[in-house]
Amino acid sequence: SVQGQAGWGSEQPGLVEDFNSFVTRTNTCGELRSAHVGQKVTLYGWVQYQRQGLFLVLRDFQGLTQIIIPQDEAHSHVKELLSNAPVESVVRVTGIVSSRPLGQENPKMPTGDIEVKAETAEILNSCKKLPFEIKDFIKKSEALRMQYRYLDLRSFRLQSNLRLRSQMVMRMREYLCNLHGFVDVETPTLFKRTPGGAKEFLVPSREAGKFYSLPQSPQQFKQLLMVGGLDRYFQVARCYRDEGSRPDRQPEFTQIDIEMSFVDRAGIQRLIEGLLQHSWPEERALIMTPFPSMTYEEALAEYGTDKPDTRFGMKIMDIGDVLRGSDIHFVQNALSYPHGSIKAICIPQGVVSDEIMQIICRPDGRLKSLLTKFLGEKEQSELIRALNMQEDDVVLLAAGEHKQCSALGALRLFSASLLEAAGLALRDPTAFHFLWVVDFPLFLPKAKNPTELESAHHPFTAPHPSDASLLYSDPTKVRSQHYDLVLNGNEVGGGSIRIHSAEQQRFVLEKVLKEDSEVLSHLIEALEFGAPPHGGIALGLDRLISLIVDAPSIRDVIAFPKSFRGRDLMGSAPDYVTPEELEPYHIQVSWPLEEKEAKKN
Amino acid sequence: SVQGQAGWGSEQPGLVEDFNSFVTRTNTCGELRSAHVGQKVTLYGWVQYQRQGLFLVLRDFQGLTQIIIPQDEAHSHVKELLSNAPVESVVRVTGIVSSRPLGQENPKMPTGDIEVKAETAEILNSCKKLPFEIKDFIKKSEALRMQYRYLDLRSFRLQSNLRLRSQMVMRMREYLCNLHGFVDVETPTLFKRTPGGAKEFLVPSREAGKFYSLPQSPQQFKQLLMVGGLDRYFQVARCYRDEGSRPDRQPEFTQIDIEMSFVDRAGIQRLIEGLLQHSWPEERALIMTPFPSMTYEEALAEYGTDKPDTRFGMKIMDIGDVLRGSDIHFVQNALSYPHGSIKAICIPQGVVSDEIMQIICRPDGRLKSLLTKFLGEKEQSELIRALNMQEDDVVLLAAGEHKQCSALGALRLFSASLLEAAGLALRDPTAFHFLWVVDFPLFLPKAKNPTELESAHHPFTAPHPSDASLLYSDPTKVRSQHYDLVLNGNEVGGGSIRIHSAEQQRFVLEKVLKEDSEVLSHLIEALEFGAPPHGGIALGLDRLISLIVDAPSIRDVIAFPKSFRGRDLMGSAPDYVTPEELEPYHIQVSWPLEEKEAKKN
Repeated sequence: SVQGQAGWGSEQPGLVEDFNSFVTRTNTCGELRSAHVGQKVTLYGWVQYQRQGLFLVLRDFQGLTQIIIPQDEAHSHVKELLSNAPVESVVRVTGIVSSRPLGQENPKMPTGDIEVKAETAEILNSCKKLPFEIKDFIKKSEALRMQYRYLDLRSFRLQSNLRLRSQMVMRMREYLCNLHGFVDVETPTLFKRTPGGAKEFLVPSREAGKFYSLPQSPQQFKQLLMVGGLDRYFQVARCYRDEGSRPDRQPEFTQIDIEMSFVDRAGIQRLIEGLLQHSWPEERALIMTPFPSMTYEEALAEYGTDKPDTRFGMKIMDIGDVLRGSDIHFVQNALSYPHGSIKAICIPQGVVSDEIMQIICRPDGRLKSLLTKFLGEKEQSELIRALNMQEDDVVLLAAGEHKQCSALGALRLFSASLLEAAGLALRDPTAFHFLWVVDFPLFLPKAKNPTELESAHHPFTAPHPSDASLLYSDPTKVRSQHYDLVLNGNEVGGGSIRIHSAEQQRFVLEKVLKEDSEVLSHLIEALEFGAPPHGGIALGLDRLISLIVDAPSIRDVIAFPKSFRGRDLMGSAPDYVTPEELEPYHIQVSWPLEEKEAKKN
Repeated sequence: SVQGQAGWGSEQPGLVEDFNSFVTRTNTCGELRSAHVGQKVTLYGWVQYQRQGLFLVLRDFQGLTQIIIPQDEAHSHVKELLSNAPVESVVRVTGIVSSRPLGQENPKMPTGDIEVKAETAEILNSCKKLPFEIKDFIKKSEALRMQYRYLDLRSFRLQSNLRLRSQMVMRMREYLCNLHGFVDVETPTLFKRTPGGAKEFLVPSREAGKFYSLPQSPQQFKQLLMVGGLDRYFQVARCYRDEGSRPDRQPEFTQIDIEMSFVDRAGIQRLIEGLLQHSWPEERALIMTPFPSMTYEEALAEYGTDKPDTRFGMKIMDIGDVLRGSDIHFVQNALSYPHGSIKAICIPQGVVSDEIMQIICRPDGRLKSLLTKFLGEKEQSELIRALNMQEDDVVLLAAGEHKQCSALGALRLFSASLLEAAGLALRDPTAFHFLWVVDFPLFLPKAKNPTELESAHHPFTAPHPSDASLLYSDPTKVRSQHYDLVLNGNEVGGGSIRIHSAEQQRFVLEKVLKEDSEVLSHLIEALEFGAPPHGGIALGLDRLISLIVDAPSIRDVIAFPKSFRGRDLMGSAPDYVTPEELEPYHIQVSWPLEEKEAKKN
């Protein structure tokens, strides 16, 4: 049952939500205790199971209560009714709370000391034969569970996830709104395309050829709110991103969207640390503040990624100096390039997983590897010392031209999974390691055309104060005031201090990014009318909650998620519409050729 | 300034929001008092005005503070900087709080006892010449104000409206979530067309010919949540309705969306009364609960509308019996029909507005009207008695065949406006009269084809328990369990107890409404798998807040509203997109013929 929530969700000590207000039930199915014995109660719930006409277990969102079916003649209709109620039917029961007979108490059940002797009952909605047993539901295919989402929602798991999400968001609101003077402002979701908005859904309007667009975030609006003097804004904002088929992404998702005037990076960081600490579920491991911080460069060098999982070590080490004297061809080759380097990770006890291995540290302190014949005694012992290798450790080497080593970063995570699959306790599954990653570059070379630059975050991000003058001379060297929040190796938030000078914003858009700034002219013009310095952040709520409840997918913390392909499998959306329905929007479908042909025949 | 909010927005006595956390300002511009004299403070704000290099007034969301510009040589740069800062520039000022010289205090200003002697200052963003003076902004055209919305947002009016909205919604959340165990669940906005969903925006998907639709409300989802055992759901839900050009409607709007299991109409009514009382702004007139209630039939008979403004009398009276003996042709004609009747409203002091009049009560108690020659002494005095006419009152008559009298209903409101324009105090502008309207018919004849029926509310509304059997014999006679909440003559909410039987739901859709139930098959099937009895309501948040703050339009309580034509005048949405951008969605624009021709030439 969902006992976790009792006493949760409110600042006021002693205040407990009243789940029985406005209805005729006297108690929920998770509420009754020995103290209630003798009371006449009315319960509503679903039939969890029923046994031989003797008793049944009634379930609601709060828990389970055992109902004793009367056996005497006077209550024969109640007996008949309850004995024949199919599993998952909705039932009202009125009866008297009694102690369970001695020895029949169930200490695993919060209501296990009592039972309710039914006096009257009513079947409110009978359940037809289920396509599967509810308790085995989690083992069924996800497609089936999504088709019958309303049945899956009855599971303890989803009830608990959705309630935790609701309560955590409520605490965040209390923190922002009641404690720190933030204003909850709703911004439009029908807007227009932004530069590079290829992932924005379009919404045809009644004006021929004109389309709204569903924004990927309220970025422009929150900045305009700061120009409008709102001072502190937040919103639990619905955002949209059309990425086609990507696993664990949803076409619509939710972010905790925040913006403040007159703030610097440290201010936003303290705000978010306070926010998470304030709203953190009581039954989870405590989180400590301030969160540690790491530069983008350190993250790439030591973890091979900009979102390091800091729950375990196995950092990437530079062993170029150790191997510089060796005869190994690829090592020498790599070191001959300007940014050439030799990096390594040492996998403690890596030998337990024999799928990947390069250099194994033997019990006698000697190394086992295809490479050892190229390494002298001295190099071997230096390697062991440099990497602090222990018996049965495995070292992975990477040689190459880049400062970053994303391959080793990925191997590091893969190795961790392998070790854990082999039974080694590497990462504490109950621990939450938050990390700030800061000092990102402002621009990165475009993947497709490295001579052109694109924003590492977005074009509104301000340069690092120390690098501001470099913007005009060597933009590739400018660090930004962008920061990411990482939790257990997942990016759960990101933000920046924004540009608040029209001239600088125009320079970034036109000269550095070579974008048409016309489409953003309203925002740039706003920066000329008294724009305060401002900055903000957005937290990915779906991802954050799924990490907190340790769910494998964000679909486990969304009431009605879409499939990989962006479909709603319960209501079958998206769906075909008639040409007449398209007419007011001045659009028609361009059928792919094969479908066109098929229709002709 | 925005003093109204101090001490607001939290349950905890003594708790005040900290507006200065996470930033380097020490105080807001509305905060300093005599108690602060001698303190060194740092303020950030906008230059409200500046006078002759002597002082300036700095403004933020909280208020105004007078800054004294230093005149001594040592601070000449500060003087130069502040004397030359254009109005609406953003400025940081550090200085010492001082008492104003005796006699120069400004009791109208909360900070009017003090001033800040500037020591250092910085222009953070200079404001270019404004296209208009901000203080006169409200007099400008609405189109201009919407184009420069970020300037309009700096007005006291919009700051105050948006903050009140945020805080009222926060209090609603506390009531629902913390006090009554409701779960805040987000539901999808990318769904599929519902039957009769002609007003739903479409969103093309990447599957050729398939479209999502932006739902008008989370109706289906909230019912499915009840089937899923969520028990108590709420959401501050973004909804969409494409109505083309309609004044004071927005293509996207917000509703407080609520659903409960095991509840009846009275339960929902008590919940909403408690919700509004709990969240009602302290500085507005108190509201009393329970709210009065009226049947749909009474409302139409007495007010000629289903959303009566009950702040004043002037009810519609049936005077058929008084005039039955008269010789007036149209009266006799009307009374000869089956539902024929003579209705009247008596406008107190109606003579002050001479635009409409029919029967005037003279000081001597005699009636002045074109009709008096047809009325005997007895009929005249009976009329005066029946309508309780006083000197200078005016009576409007309507004769016709219908039970409802929407013409008199409209005249009643129109007369009230005329009387108030003429200076008569008819409606207390600070009073809030809530009213429940209940017992609506379940079905109404379609306007276009009166032999067919449509749902008065929506097809999921349950019949009134007393009329349930009539559903199968004479559906036109069935009253529903639909209820509307009316505030000062405006519909601010509506809801119903829902059908929770699949058989009944199928009958209503297929047999009564003759709709294709296939598109709702997932919902109907859900009702066969243990659906609890349930009901709910939705409050129109934009309308509710605009009535509370007495704003002429819902655009005054929305940060970035759209124009009449559904356009965003600041960012110019909707906008043209390229054919390439449409390609992934398999659609093309069907240009109207004239535009096609124009393009050719």
